Amino acid sequence: MAIYIVSRRLSGGSVTGALRCATLWRPYSTSFREERDTFGPILVPSDKLWGAQTQRSLQNFEIGGERERMPEPIIRAFGILKKCAAKVNVDYGLDPSIGKAIMQAAQEVAEGKLNDHFPLVVWQTGSGTQTNMNANEVIANRAAEILGHKRGEKFVHPNDHVNRSQSSNDTFPTVMHIAAAMEINSRLIPNLKQLHTTLNAKSLEFKDIVKIGRTHTQDATPLTLGQEFSGYSTQVKYGVDRVLCTLPRIYQLAQGGTAVGTGLNTKKGFDVKIAAAVAEETNLPFVTAENKFEALAAHDALVETSGALNTVAVSLMKIGNDIRLLGSGPRCGLGELILPENEPGSSIMPGKVNPTQCEALTMVCAQVMGNHVAVTVGGSNGHFELNVFKPMIANGVLHSIRLVADASASFEKNCVRGIQANKERISKLLHESLMLVTSLNPKIGYDNAAAVAKKAHKEGTTLKEAALKLGVLTSEEFDNLVVPEKMIGPTD
Amino acid sequence: MAIYIVSRRLSGGSVTGALRCATLWRPYSTSFREERDTFGPILVPSDKLWGAQTQRSLQNFEIGGERERMPEPIIRAFGILKKCAAKVNVDYGLDPSIGKAIMQAAQEVAEGKLNDHFPLVVWQTGSGTQTNMNANEVIANRAAEILGHKRGEKFVHPNDHVNRSQSSNDTFPTVMHIAAAMEINSRLIPNLKQLHTTLNAKSLEFKDIVKIGRTHTQDATPLTLGQEFSGYSTQVKYGVDRVLCTLPRIYQLAQGGTAVGTGLNTKKGFDVKIAAAVAEETNLPFVTAENKFEALAAHDALVETSGALNTVAVSLMKIGNDIRLLGSGPRCGLGELILPENEPGSSIMPGKVNPTQCEALTMVCAQVMGNHVAVTVGGSNGHFELNVFKPMIANGVLHSIRLVADASASFEKNCVRGIQANKERISKLLHESLMLVTSLNPKIGYDNAAAVAKKAHKEGTTLKEAALKLGVLTSEEFDNLVVPEKMIGPTD
Amino acid sequence: MAIYIVSRRLSGGSVTGALRCATLWRPYSTSFREERDTFGPILVPSDKLWGAQTQRSLQNFEIGGERERMPEPIIRAFGILKKCAAKVNVDYGLDPSIGKAIMQAAQEVAEGKLNDHFPLVVWQTGSGTQTNMNANEVIANRAAEILGHKRGEKFVHPNDHVNRSQSSNDTFPTVMHIAAAMEINSRLIPNLKQLHTTLNAKSLEFKDIVKIGRTHTQDATPLTLGQEFSGYSTQVKYGVDRVLCTLPRIYQLAQGGTAVGTGLNTKKGFDVKIAAAVAEETNLPFVTAENKFEALAAHDALVETSGALNTVAVSLMKIGNDIRLLGSGPRCGLGELILPENEPGSSIMPGKVNPTQCEALTMVCAQVMGNHVAVTVGGSNGHFELNVFKPMIANGVLHSIRLVADASASFEKNCVRGIQANKERISKLLHESLMLVTSLNPKIGYDNAAAVAKKAHKEGTTLKEAALKLGVLTSEEFDNLVVPEKMIGPTD
Amino acid sequence: MAIYIVSRRLSGGSVTGALRCATLWRPYSTSFREERDTFGPILVPSDKLWGAQTQRSLQNFEIGGERERMPEPIIRAFGILKKCAAKVNVDYGLDPSIGKAIMQAAQEVAEGKLNDHFPLVVWQTGSGTQTNMNANEVIANRAAEILGHKRGEKFVHPNDHVNRSQSSNDTFPTVMHIAAAMEINSRLIPNLKQLHTTLNAKSLEFKDIVKIGRTHTQDATPLTLGQEFSGYSTQVKYGVDRVLCTLPRIYQLAQGGTAVGTGLNTKKGFDVKIAAAVAEETNLPFVTAENKFEALAAHDALVETSGALNTVAVSLMKIGNDIRLLGSGPRCGLGELILPENEPGSSIMPGKVNPTQCEALTMVCAQVMGNHVAVTVGGSNGHFELNVFKPMIANGVLHSIRLVADASASFEKNCVRGIQANKERISKLLHESLMLVTSLNPKIGYDNAAAVAKKAHKEGTTLKEAALKLGVLTSEEFDNLVVPEKMIGPTD
Repeated sequence: MAIYIVSRRLSGGSVTGALRCATLWRPYSTSFREERDTFGPILVPSDKLWGAQTQRSLQNFEIGGERERMPEPIIRAFGILKKCAAKVNVDYGLDPSIGKAIMQAAQEVAEGKLNDHFPLVVWQTGSGTQTNMNANEVIANRAAEILGHKRGEKFVHPNDHVNRSQSSNDTFPTVMHIAAAMEINSRLIPNLKQLHTTLNAKSLEFKDIVKIGRTHTQDATPLTLGQEFSGYSTQVKYGVDRVLCTLPRIYQLAQGGTAVGTGLNTKKGFDVKIAAAVAEETNLPFVTAENKFEALAAHDALVETSGALNTVAVSLMKIGNDIRLLGSGPRCGLGELILPENEPGSSIMPGKVNPTQCEALTMVCAQVMGNHVAVTVGGSNGHFELNVFKPMIANGVLHSIRLVADASASFEKNCVRGIQANKERISKLLHESLMLVTSLNPKIGYDNAAAVAKKAHKEGTTLKEAALKLGVLTSEEFDNLVVPEKMIGPTD
Repeated sequence: MAIYIVSRRLSGGSVTGALRCATLWRPYSTSFREERDTFGPILVPSDKLWGAQTQRSLQNFEIGGERERMPEPIIRAFGILKKCAAKVNVDYGLDPSIGKAIMQAAQEVAEGKLNDHFPLVVWQTGSGTQTNMNANEVIANRAAEILGHKRGEKFVHPNDHVNRSQSSNDTFPTVMHIAAAMEINSRLIPNLKQLHTTLNAKSLEFKDIVKIGRTHTQDATPLTLGQEFSGYSTQVKYGVDRVLCTLPRIYQLAQGGTAVGTGLNTKKGFDVKIAAAVAEETNLPFVTAENKFEALAAHDALVETSGALNTVAVSLMKIGNDIRLLGSGPRCGLGELILPENEPGSSIMPGKVNPTQCEALTMVCAQVMGNHVAVTVGGSNGHFELNVFKPMIANGVLHSIRLVADASASFEKNCVRGIQANKERISKLLHESLMLVTSLNPKIGYDNAAAVAKKAHKEGTTLKEAALKLGVLTSEEFDNLVVPEKMIGPTD
Repeated sequence: MAIYIVSRRLSGGSVTGALRCATLWRPYSTSFREERDTFGPILVPSDKLWGAQTQRSLQNFEIGGERERMPEPIIRAFGILKKCAAKVNVDYGLDPSIGKAIMQAAQEVAEGKLNDHFPLVVWQTGSGTQTNMNANEVIANRAAEILGHKRGEKFVHPNDHVNRSQSSNDTFPTVMHIAAAMEINSRLIPNLKQLHTTLNAKSLEFKDIVKIGRTHTQDATPLTLGQEFSGYSTQVKYGVDRVLCTLPRIYQLAQGGTAVGTGLNTKKGFDVKIAAAVAEETNLPFVTAENKFEALAAHDALVETSGALNTVAVSLMKIGNDIRLLGSGPRCGLGELILPENEPGSSIMPGKVNPTQCEALTMVCAQVMGNHVAVTVGGSNGHFELNVFKPMIANGVLHSIRLVADASASFEKNCVRGIQANKERISKLLHESLMLVTSLNPKIGYDNAAAVAKKAHKEGTTLKEAALKLGVLTSEEFDNLVVPEKMIGPTD
Repeated sequence: MAIYIVSRRLSGGSVTGALRCATLWRPYSTSFREERDTFGPILVPSDKLWGAQTQRSLQNFEIGGERERMPEPIIRAFGILKKCAAKVNVDYGLDPSIGKAIMQAAQEVAEGKLNDHFPLVVWQTGSGTQTNMNANEVIANRAAEILGHKRGEKFVHPNDHVNRSQSSNDTFPTVMHIAAAMEINSRLIPNLKQLHTTLNAKSLEFKDIVKIGRTHTQDATPLTLGQEFSGYSTQVKYGVDRVLCTLPRIYQLAQGGTAVGTGLNTKKGFDVKIAAAVAEETNLPFVTAENKFEALAAHDALVETSGALNTVAVSLMKIGNDIRLLGSGPRCGLGELILPENEPGSSIMPGKVNPTQCEALTMVCAQVMGNHVAVTVGGSNGHFELNVFKPMIANGVLHSIRLVADASASFEKNCVRGIQANKERISKLLHESLMLVTSLNPKIGYDNAAAVAKKAHKEGTTLKEAALKLGVLTSEEFDNLVVPEKMIGPTD
């Protein structure tokens, strides 16, 4: 009945509105309760903790469906922030019993226990207000229940209690930074470090394997396979540095700026205290932002972090490409590396190992480069006191962090760790190469050396065969001079 | 027991592998059956229809979690394709009873009934082989059940029957095109057309409202609000054209190219017949690709479509920005438009309407621009006979289609449809403008007109006040000459 | 003296301003004349035709230096447009002798004869007003000279005569379209077609060379080298189609919209007549834009064209990458193609041919992808009646057109045309491949075939050797069955 | 004669080749001399110092024309590097008189005196070999002249003397870093700091001007104009930090890695010594790269710097947009800022000031975002021991540095420095705002306050008028309570 009235209001007289909306949560709720906001009453599924504003957003933003939900790290960060806010608010006069209940409810949000009560998508209001209200409403209703009251009665009030001294305009930037910092520290950095460790171990393992170098994709002077892997390992190491370099600005929290950055409706010191509380809660060195106007109106810090992720993607794309090409074959490619077999490559051809981990990794890299452009565009389009591309920016950065972290781990575990050198093939290619002729220069002169190389190239023979045919040196002399192992570093 | 053995093999001796993997499907399965592929046996949840290769992919590609699952339109397109393949294969000798069972099972996939059996993520092998095998395995097991056989027994064989005359290398490009074409036709184009219709209706509704023009964000000569909206409406109309322009190349299907484009293992005519079957099934004008080598090795057609979506995003970004700025206020902005109120803007300030639909729309536009770069990077990185960024490309294009389609519908329904002109404000601004002085030029000359405008600007008065003070014309003359309504088009 | 006064005004009292400015044109001018605009007098080099507004822009926008000058095709298009405008204006009452002189002067601009008089950079006002005024000033002064008057006297007036019935806001969009259309038709399309022709000829030349296919960079079933090149050739052919597809919207001209799209200060029919005149002058099917508001406020048409260029870049990146990898070696790479030697690759190693044309081409592709993002960002950021990223958009699109056109020609002439197949190497790789085992399936069954392949892989022998050792068939049988030439198409 | 032979070889028998090539340098050379490389003799303009390899590149890479020349900072950095290399090579045994002549010639290159002898374009071989050889050839010929020998005689040898112990593969990455570091330190950072200083000064100048805040482009609670500018100033300050953060990796030089990173053909310690020499020459803290393999094969450091420039562009886009919108009007926009008038905005409307500096700045930002994508794509596409997108990457990064630096300076000088607050307008908007009602809450309660605001909104009156009409407080009470100056910070 009530639902009919509500749905009419929202969808112009047709009953299909409510039914369509109802498909947005699963499993389907058969009973509803009434919640209210300044727009009036609205029906909400009885088994959900959210309130009126969440419900309105659900109905007004049918964009993308369930896979577009606000990322979980944002929800968890809201749990942490609201817990810390309640703690600090008690210092500033919030009723301690209500404060305690809020902290307990917020803790549940922080632990991901109430994820099902956060149905909103990324594509909502650009300030993230609706997800802030979602958090306020869920925590208020849950805190009320803890205190023995019913949902929807507002014994604990979403705005007056849970959102006290806060505005969406400072909470959402704050959770963007908390979520990014936590994901980077707990997920991305460890996985990149593990990848670095394994690449480094491979570099050591392969340190004595001399192989042909390739520049312009063409044969060049030799190096060791270990040296080649040391390049990859260095790229990943610097990638870790690059991401860490951006954290000082991510550790700055907007909280305390409230609506426009001035801190209206907060007490002096609130901003510093809440940053300290978040730092304690997360064990990360958060501080209050030096300038709250910048912190609300711009998200340059996240654009910067996205830039670091973009650089990491560039590095991983190079590594993934090299490894799949060096592992190409088994007969008609370069064939220098043997990659682990994880799944059937083909039902018909034994020996075919597809470099599927390289493929997943490089696809991730492409997506991260794309997300970076999205974040860049969003970051550049703020107006006045508020950037309203916040959920998109948060989503883009968190998506990139997650993808790089997971793909690095998968690549490390399922590919790099098991890479073997095909020593026979490497040696064969090395010794067929014409470029070893370089080492004859001092002995027989550039012109004779060139003649040897040209003859070998033209006739398709080895350098040695050509040299002997030309009679410029003996077999023994040749063997003494042409030693790739002496070509892999500067001389004394 | 068996699970222990398998997990050891995959995770280096620890039992946590299997447990960790098990969290990837919901609800948690407590019983398992054994499935096999050329790598040997592997345990699969009993209640799932997938087989060994799907299971291996689940375990080898833990990247991104559930929200990164292969998009549903791809799964449905696989249903359509496998149904059509069975139909054509019967013509070429496939046992009709098996063919019929495959067609029935595939139809269920096409209708989305078996979505829960497609757990794989986008970030897998770059050919999409694992999702092709997922489709083959699910359909084979389901078809076997239809025929009274058990899962895993391979009475209907995933490769020999379901995948007959096919390769992942041609099926995946084919479903990319089917899915994109269907989403564009069923979702994107109708929603863009509806948006165009409504913008056009607004243009007519506002055709007599003369307002100040703005160039460089500065006051300029007048136009009607209807003319302004006709610009938006034209942008959207051309956007539809732009997307449609790319479809002829999307309607080309790779099917029949098999592994490298040659059509090995197909009979002559198979490619033409299957394209015809898909065309009949979907009511869309699919044809076989003119060159199968291009169709496997490149995805230029999807890069092109992504480019059209990018242009649509550019258009919608302009429209969304204009509408939020024209609706800014209510007191301290431009205030020419009154946007519908859909939710509380602030708990404290009545009359504050946030342009939340514009915000969702413009965030979507930024993401589409980013996805386009991802698709571009993926599209450019193919090697030899196969581009292996297929799932990422498919996901990016389908994501953009869905977001633009949904956001356009939301914007149309929840914003544009309800926009009202603030006629009073528009009129006030128009008549305060100094630029109407232009119409005095013919009568009093440029120098006198300039003097009027400068005096008005300096003293902050109206043009009329300044003109009267300077004594260059009478009140009546001024009123006869300064008529914005005469400034909105060419003269006879 | 006068210069001292002016420079003080512009640079806060120091004389260095004028000297610094003077370095912006070459060769250094030692004498100056006074020109005027509504801001007052300003000194201009005597040997230049430009006037006061150009000079101010020179001094106010010292961004990037000479290589950032407005691209020449824009200057030439201004010549064409101003000539046509004068022609049409004579119909509408412009003094015929003045009209004729303008047409003559504009023709000189169109022919590039007055390029030295267009010193302004791209990074100026976003409407391109200053370059429009540069054109007006140069043409006015030149026309005055033709009529026997002096520079700076305004016998022919830049605004009243040359810019009559026009505004920068409609002329600049118009020249953007004229320049893009001309460059596409005269430079890009012919060069892409030539590249297509040559790739197609190579495809025919190589039609009988059977080679190993590669998917996932791994050995796969065979195809002909001709088939492989047919993929490239098709990509380029579709690239031509893609660019042509966007032209209908480029052929729409904004001219006649004047300041905000209404056509204020034009006579009815002016827009249609001027488009017809431009069409006649250029031999291209220009028409007046259906909606002038869209044509000034948005540049979606150029974003769309940029998208087509982006797709072409994606295609060329794939082709360039394939060719350099297929030509890698000479000893340690794939070595299937022999690329032409155009310059010394290394002073030390004969036989080293670097694929430098591929490198130039793929660098161009990367830049085009970047320019596309710049154009996208600029295109999306218009406000109200005018997009003010016009010069950047024009520059980006014209830069991409020029680079793709020139690089395609260079690649065609200096690389593709001279590519030779290394038949010996191709044959060797093909026959070493294990994947030919596929053709044994019908005769000896999958299990035996697999055993053959596995044995060959494990022992590093040929398939034939393995098959004979296993005794599954005779040498003669093997030779009859394993025929790559039968694996390159569907069967009857 | 000779020219005829050469041109035939290059252009297939026609004499037009040489003529066409000849148009590539200006002024046209009428006499030629013969130069040689391993490909044989080739004609070079007599008045140019370059040699055979430069000449071949000119003829093989006709891409883009003169404005695509290798950027000047690269040429100058080559001068610095070659000077330092000669210095160190003398320590390692190079003839001191030759060394001294090289140093003198290289110094001329470093000072830009020989720019006309560097005609090559960016779009050449991807290693930059041809520009390295251009530098070697010019310096060798010039050094020979200094020593009294003729051009082309190779008394000083381009390879053996000038390029001694070097390879293009390490020199080009080295000059990329030298050029970027010098441009950043001498041009970008000072200009950004100046912009920061001026924005900061404006922030102080405006610290007492209370104005309406705007979130979602809608009226919000107040702040001071100084606070608003402090946000901009902080963005620019952090921008400087972001760029500086990337320099430690830019200060690492690849020199000493030679062909593939091993340092073949160098003596131990060469790498450290040359980095020290460059550091001394430039007064910048260059060191030898920790890993030379990474330094040749990847350009992650430049991608990272490009990412910092991208973030700076994002910041400047926000600032430029805000300033043009806050300065919009003069009558029909927000009108809070008065921007300096630098040129006529319109010939017809006095008082129209177009925010042209904002426009140039934001166009630059869009281009920088685009260049960043180009650099990202190039950076990700390296193969094996060498990334061959070097010239494009260098060009992109240097282009972005130059544009941001110049546009920041222009914006600071021609716009920010002269911005004035329109205090009257700011005050009027502030006091008309309904959101000041917030301060009534404590006194009359939220419901009464809401009633006041709603009445004012509905009737279009001030809050005070509405409050008095409703009789909820006296005029005096209202004036005591509604004090925007008390709303701009937290309370004690």
